[in-house]
Amino acid sequence: MKTIKFLPDQVSIEVEEGENLLAAAAKAGVYINAYCGGDGVCGKCKVQIESGEVISGKARLKEKDYAAGIRLACQSSVKSDLTVRIPEATGKDGKALKRKPVTTRAISARSLDDLIGTWQVDPPVEKRFLKLDPPDMEDNVPDLQRLMRAIRQRCHDCKDPTYDHPELLMELPFTLREANWEITVILLKGRRTEEPDRIIAVEPGNTTDKLYGLAVDIGTTTVCGVLVDLGNGKVITEASAYNDQIAYGEDVISRIVYSQRPGGLRTLQDKMVRTINTIIETVCKTVIINPSDISYIMAAGNTIMSHLLLGLNPKFIRESPYVPTCSQFPLTRAAQLGIQAHPSVRLFLYPAVASYVGGDIIAGVHACRMYKSPELTLFIDIGTNGEIVVGNEEWMVCAACSAGPAFEGGGIRHGMRANSGAIENFHIHPQTLEPMIITIDRIKPCGICGSGLISIVSELLEAKVIDQQGKFKRQLEHPRIREGEDGWEYVLAWGKDTLMGDDLVITEVDLDNLIRAKGAMYAGYLTLLESVGMTFTDLDRVILAGNFGAYIDLERAISIGLLPDIQRERFYYLGNASMLGCRISLTDNARFRERMQVSSLITNLELAENARFMDHYMAALFLPHTDMGLFPSVREKLAG
Amino acid sequence: MKTIKFLPDQVSIEVEEGENLLAAAAKAGVYINAYCGGDGVCGKCKVQIESGEVISGKARLKEKDYAAGIRLACQSSVKSDLTVRIPEATGKDGKALKRKPVTTRAISARSLDDLIGTWQVDPPVEKRFLKLDPPDMEDNVPDLQRLMRAIRQRCHDCKDPTYDHPELLMELPFTLREANWEITVILLKGRRTEEPDRIIAVEPGNTTDKLYGLAVDIGTTTVCGVLVDLGNGKVITEASAYNDQIAYGEDVISRIVYSQRPGGLRTLQDKMVRTINTIIETVCKTVIINPSDISYIMAAGNTIMSHLLLGLNPKFIRESPYVPTCSQFPLTRAAQLGIQAHPSVRLFLYPAVASYVGGDIIAGVHACRMYKSPELTLFIDIGTNGEIVVGNEEWMVCAACSAGPAFEGGGIRHGMRANSGAIENFHIHPQTLEPMIITIDRIKPCGICGSGLISIVSELLEAKVIDQQGKFKRQLEHPRIREGEDGWEYVLAWGKDTLMGDDLVITEVDLDNLIRAKGAMYAGYLTLLESVGMTFTDLDRVILAGNFGAYIDLERAISIGLLPDIQRERFYYLGNASMLGCRISLTDNARFRERMQVSSLITNLELAENARFMDHYMAALFLPHTDMGLFPSVREKLAG
Repeated sequence: MKTIKFLPDQVSIEVEEGENLLAAAAKAGVYINAYCGGDGVCGKCKVQIESGEVISGKARLKEKDYAAGIRLACQSSVKSDLTVRIPEATGKDGKALKRKPVTTRAISARSLDDLIGTWQVDPPVEKRFLKLDPPDMEDNVPDLQRLMRAIRQRCHDCKDPTYDHPELLMELPFTLREANWEITVILLKGRRTEEPDRIIAVEPGNTTDKLYGLAVDIGTTTVCGVLVDLGNGKVITEASAYNDQIAYGEDVISRIVYSQRPGGLRTLQDKMVRTINTIIETVCKTVIINPSDISYIMAAGNTIMSHLLLGLNPKFIRESPYVPTCSQFPLTRAAQLGIQAHPSVRLFLYPAVASYVGGDIIAGVHACRMYKSPELTLFIDIGTNGEIVVGNEEWMVCAACSAGPAFEGGGIRHGMRANSGAIENFHIHPQTLEPMIITIDRIKPCGICGSGLISIVSELLEAKVIDQQGKFKRQLEHPRIREGEDGWEYVLAWGKDTLMGDDLVITEVDLDNLIRAKGAMYAGYLTLLESVGMTFTDLDRVILAGNFGAYIDLERAISIGLLPDIQRERFYYLGNASMLGCRISLTDNARFRERMQVSSLITNLELAENARFMDHYMAALFLPHTDMGLFPSVREKLAG
Repeated sequence: MKTIKFLPDQVSIEVEEGENLLAAAAKAGVYINAYCGGDGVCGKCKVQIESGEVISGKARLKEKDYAAGIRLACQSSVKSDLTVRIPEATGKDGKALKRKPVTTRAISARSLDDLIGTWQVDPPVEKRFLKLDPPDMEDNVPDLQRLMRAIRQRCHDCKDPTYDHPELLMELPFTLREANWEITVILLKGRRTEEPDRIIAVEPGNTTDKLYGLAVDIGTTTVCGVLVDLGNGKVITEASAYNDQIAYGEDVISRIVYSQRPGGLRTLQDKMVRTINTIIETVCKTVIINPSDISYIMAAGNTIMSHLLLGLNPKFIRESPYVPTCSQFPLTRAAQLGIQAHPSVRLFLYPAVASYVGGDIIAGVHACRMYKSPELTLFIDIGTNGEIVVGNEEWMVCAACSAGPAFEGGGIRHGMRANSGAIENFHIHPQTLEPMIITIDRIKPCGICGSGLISIVSELLEAKVIDQQGKFKRQLEHPRIREGEDGWEYVLAWGKDTLMGDDLVITEVDLDNLIRAKGAMYAGYLTLLESVGMTFTDLDRVILAGNFGAYIDLERAISIGLLPDIQRERFYYLGNASMLGCRISLTDNARFRERMQVSSLITNLELAENARFMDHYMAALFLPHTDMGLFPSVREKLAG
């Protein structure tokens, strides 16, 4: 970690070596004039390196300036501890910028290990090398019986083994003889003490040094895979790919609609299987193993993705009263679904709780162990459907809020997913109202992703460009604030500075959609807490899960009312909790077995036709909320 | 039953009404001159009906004779109690024939029920009609969970149910809604008290009145199916078909050989599946039900047939040390094998003990409950491989004797299976040495089946046409005894009286093959008994199983040394014991569960390279045996 001190604001921040200097400033809440998203073309973000070293080019800088230590922040990466002065020209009016608290994200990240706990390398599958006695006329028991006998005799900690697929038997006689009766057996450990272990494969020779598992997070948009060495629990490689189903609809509802067309269900299943196969191919190529060396697949996805993968019709998930076919999914053989894996390899899918609270959420709850803690925890996964879980070791309730797709770029004029060119961070100069925009991959901006949207709205609100209803202040006269075709808007980047060449704006319609989305989330928390007679002050912890959650700026999310205004130390960022749950389950059998606790403890609350939810929702259609007593820190900030 | 008294021998026998009079005489050991097998063409078998009534035509009889009560025995069927005189002309020398004891078969048959015991109508599968509560917003648990909940609430005697095939889930949402939440669930009862019941199907509406099971005996030659109404345990209909594999080899060894050719295993599996489908179609057409109305299939076959049905390679069964892939076969879904059944229907295959002691034998042992009785029992199934089991409630040992195919017509010049035209019964006139032959379906003879062969050899031995080594007595001058191309032979029927027009003979080579076959069986009994320190006198019961066993004439089989010479009351005829076991298992869950006892109690003894077996075998290559002390009743008979 390197420490950067920004002058004249005297703000310090710790960042990783190699961090982009503009991004570091944005994180620290230090405003630097920057229009082009970090592409290096506007040449505005000049800073003076007073001490320390950055790696940077000379482009767009005069020789004299370069020699004097002037650099473009967006083109510089941190090499050592730094002292960086923001030139007066950059700050425009020369006044010190109002200092904002650094996000609490780094603080919570430190305690992530406490949250999820340690896990043992004791996977649900194991390999045993066995030398069988070759058969003779005195001992010619069948091959399977011979194998079972050897397992019983040599593996005293194994439960009487069983098996459940005839394919194992088809190969067994040949495997045993070709291997000269020296084989490795892969066992799936019994679920309960009285349940037998299951033989899932028999391999020739001693292959105990190769035991791999694949954790798969099946997202509606992206599918991620992590290859784990089950011998030491270490992640070997990972890969991700767009869910091939995207061509048939961007969100779960449009997938359900497509699945009702003739052959639609089959097509969607095939596409998902193909996506998983792509990931398997990628990870296997990377580390040069064979797909058949993967002994177990642990996956999690929302209820619709889980249904589609198994070929279950999701029709009734979409229709009131929103009933899925099942919530506990059968332990399936991956190859039966068409997944490129050894015929015996099992695919475990995390159970769901309800139609809109799926296995991805359960995997997250499982990973963070809120069901083992006495502390009252609010678990939040924000997406098209924000899913929330509240509870502790004794009880848990969950709900899905139809937040709408604003956080994924839907319903926002220039909304987009978190891809290259998306504005992911934004500051506004409180006096000049000029923007500082940081894009993903530091190229010219082409849109706004979820975290960017939160930044923009909170900055516009704090700079009083918009009011608490999300309306632009008409009296402000500024070239960037204007009446566009959708009504009032703020120009985030002029056409010359954008990828597409047109002005990039945020409109009042966008603001309205965002307010509805965050309002639904907040109303969800309140309704769920109320349902168990509690309120925000009772919360010991708030856990933010999901890829999107990992990028949220806490202060700003609170400013707009997306997250409750409670002590910042209570917030934790869990990142891709679904994947984390899969990885833990893959590696630690005891933790894996605990998952039954998770799903049995959670009670689902339907918000769709809940009157209290509607009341809370209406009250939350304000920035941050109509009841400012719920947001004391924001009230203070807006008053300041 | 009708009583027939034959004069002048004063022999009486009880037969069913409608029995053929020639066959009745043969059973009673009464000789009637008959060359044509019962076809009515030779016109030799004239008898006088002195009292009672037969149904008979006038063909080949003079009007005067018919009026006087003369009838052709082969063309007459019994209508009432009869007194029948064998005319002197028929008996040729007019002397009363030596009386032979009636077979003990009828005696033992009466106690068959005691042997197999009663069985309850309490099948391993059951149907339950359930009205589920339709889902609403207050109760929108998943469909599967709703179903499970209803089963738990309404079926107090059910164990917590589970399910194990995703196909069930694919249809479930639609079945439930189309049936307006009133459905019938088919449950497979858990194996042990702690094992959960399994849902195998869900049907719309109330179908509890239709619960069918199919018992299948998978023979190498013939496959039989019996459709059972599991509501009352009654057999509804049955069907049999040749095993379609026959085109690829008549016996198990040639099937194994064929299975090693490219695609051979798959072909043989397909053929067997096709055969079973034929049977399913036949029984379903007969009683107008749908194949999907069959809820359970219980099958038994030898180890090779079981392997081939499941697609397991039987290669190593044929090679020393004769190791099958497995002896406990997995509970399979019939549809997965290609069997025309509801996707969820389970196919249960009786476990085997060893490569040549298969599930058909276990099913027989299971049916006769020798493992529940303190009585020492010898269970015999005679075929190409005679399989034998000795034991009681405490222990059982089994062995297979490579008897060779003599009893199935193999290695016998005019040997054939038990089809139309096969000589199935035979008598020889002790003075004239002329034959009396009875064929299956009473047509002209075209060959000799197993039971016919035993008759012929025992008659030739008792008439001293052959000696105890199975050699023809060269000094006998008789047109029927001659030197043919294979050495000495006896003409059973002249060409004019046979179907094919050639002389039908039995040769010394045939006799030699028969002696080897019966010698192997006898050596098997002795070796097995010796292995547990016992001998024939310790036996309380001998159970003859198998289709062939059902047709054996006990006295004659003892005469040639195929069966031990012990009290006749100790013999029981079980018939198709394999099918009986399947039927019992299909109907009575408690009996079905007992089968584990059977396979776990039986120890296999390999005779193939056993020195004691070889000694016993050499000693048994004699009619009935070199040690006549083992056959006191035969010694007496031959001396008489």
